[in-house]
Amino acid sequence: MPALSDGQPVGIVGLGLIGGSLGLDLQAAGIEVRALVHRESTALRARERGLASSIGTDPALLQGCGLVVLALPLDRLLAPDPALLDALPSSAVLTDVGSVKRPVLAHWRALLLGLGRREQLGRFVAGHPMAGTANSGVEAGQPGLFRGRPWVATPEGDTDPTALALVRELAERVGSRWFTCPAADHDRAVALISHLPVLVGAALLAAADRAGTAAGVGDLARFLASSGFADTSRVGGGNPELGTLMARTNREALLQALAAYRRELDGLESLVQAERWSELAGRLSEAQSLRPAYLGGDPPPLLGLAADDRPAAAP
Amino acid sequence: MPALSDGQPVGIVGLGLIGGSLGLDLQAAGIEVRALVHRESTALRARERGLASSIGTDPALLQGCGLVVLALPLDRLLAPDPALLDALPSSAVLTDVGSVKRPVLAHWRALLLGLGRREQLGRFVAGHPMAGTANSGVEAGQPGLFRGRPWVATPEGDTDPTALALVRELAERVGSRWFTCPAADHDRAVALISHLPVLVGAALLAAADRAGTAAGVGDLARFLASSGFADTSRVGGGNPELGTLMARTNREALLQALAAYRRELDGLESLVQAERWSELAGRLSEAQSLRPAYLGGDPPPLLGLAADDRPAAAP
Repeated sequence: MPALSDGQPVGIVGLGLIGGSLGLDLQAAGIEVRALVHRESTALRARERGLASSIGTDPALLQGCGLVVLALPLDRLLAPDPALLDALPSSAVLTDVGSVKRPVLAHWRALLLGLGRREQLGRFVAGHPMAGTANSGVEAGQPGLFRGRPWVATPEGDTDPTALALVRELAERVGSRWFTCPAADHDRAVALISHLPVLVGAALLAAADRAGTAAGVGDLARFLASSGFADTSRVGGGNPELGTLMARTNREALLQALAAYRRELDGLESLVQAERWSELAGRLSEAQSLRPAYLGGDPPPLLGLAADDRPAAAP
Repeated sequence: MPALSDGQPVGIVGLGLIGGSLGLDLQAAGIEVRALVHRESTALRARERGLASSIGTDPALLQGCGLVVLALPLDRLLAPDPALLDALPSSAVLTDVGSVKRPVLAHWRALLLGLGRREQLGRFVAGHPMAGTANSGVEAGQPGLFRGRPWVATPEGDTDPTALALVRELAERVGSRWFTCPAADHDRAVALISHLPVLVGAALLAAADRAGTAAGVGDLARFLASSGFADTSRVGGGNPELGTLMARTNREALLQALAAYRRELDGLESLVQAERWSELAGRLSEAQSLRPAYLGGDPPPLLGLAADDRPAAAP
């Protein structure tokens, strides 16, 4: 199994925010990057931007890559082009960047088995770099996107340790903070901190609009809304296709998160209803004290490196 | 009834964010400002900062003021010092800056009646400048805080039009965008756009914490949380005393807002439960299209000036 520095090129499928940023940083680290895109017009612009060493629309360009990063949007990752599948080198380590992990693993393990590539199952490493901006598409890639941000991998029991080590080397080469956890844990965590806020904020916008209109204060509410409302509703007013895709692919964990949320909201509502103000103040104090731990910091001690994801020596 | 420019000083009770900022801007407009504060140490610091022309702890300094702005925190506004009440000039126009209006009106009308000042009822103008920063206290006041921001007044049927015009002159002198509406409308609108988001965000923090811990992914959720979670939970993790006070003083409107919110959230949850993805996408599209109207802009045409709040000619 080669290391990134062994001279084998890295393949990237898709040059959006994640793929393009990765291409820029890997090239800056002296690594040859071959990128596959869907449309010739994208390839032209990506070449102008220098997002990879070579860029094209023919999947054959991936031949010879020791590592292929599937940097596709989640919907395309879950319904990949058959020509792409055929062109993936059977000896390569494959990794993805999708924001849910159990469906990706289930789908890609089935795909690889269907292609008769049982021996490649252990070289499919599911991953999720937690980096983002509001931008997408071929103009979105930027240097340094991953620096200091988490890059989660969710290895399975049969994941090849050297494949995992290669993906880790990739993540750390672009400055990410690497760690691993089970795919189900990842999906439950992102349901709470990433997918639940979408519905929470969307419901707020709908409630302000419908209840405001019904009470004859819709215009007034819109005029008086300040930064607090804007912030609370930001992700709720985001890309609807993306929000739906998250809900569809992480439905079970999202429903559990929604149930937990409803219990908390019901509790707060009961305190307001019963005028139990000191208890309400206690709950709001608890919320205030909880928040700083969600604002970034070191990985908690119980996460981080398991014994089997330390970089292996090159064979 | 004097205009601001007639030479009578303006009194300000409290030199926190609102009172201090008002003092700075009014002095810059050439108006004499007399400010009453609670503690001598605050007076010393406020003098150093030049927040008013004269500053002291003796309520007698308000004598001679034609307009007194009660720039107190809501809890102190609803339980004012008896010495303050006695010292308020009986001929002055009084206005407040509290973030709920029905309770302030009910309380202060009762207070004025209790003091035997029935004739001053029409000169109590309830108001709410919609300006804020994260700061509070004597260090918080800053020039230009009100520029371009709404300043809502909620006149009653018996409000003296010349008193209303004087408060409007004050608001416009510091650059606010003036308009009026019924107090009940104001309170319903702020329940939706200001008080509901506090509980929505607090419930999110509690749900992420409790459900994350129960599922064994609490540390993971905290580590993976990004700007979306931070924004959605910002006001939910804010000052608990302030949040409780809002709920206590605007309880009825907040309960209506919570009921509306729960209906919307239940609707979204049902769609996820039933896997009705195109309808979910439709709801999220609706939320996306609603949000821009809450991000600031001109006052809606139906708000703004009623006939009775145009500035009256000075008598």
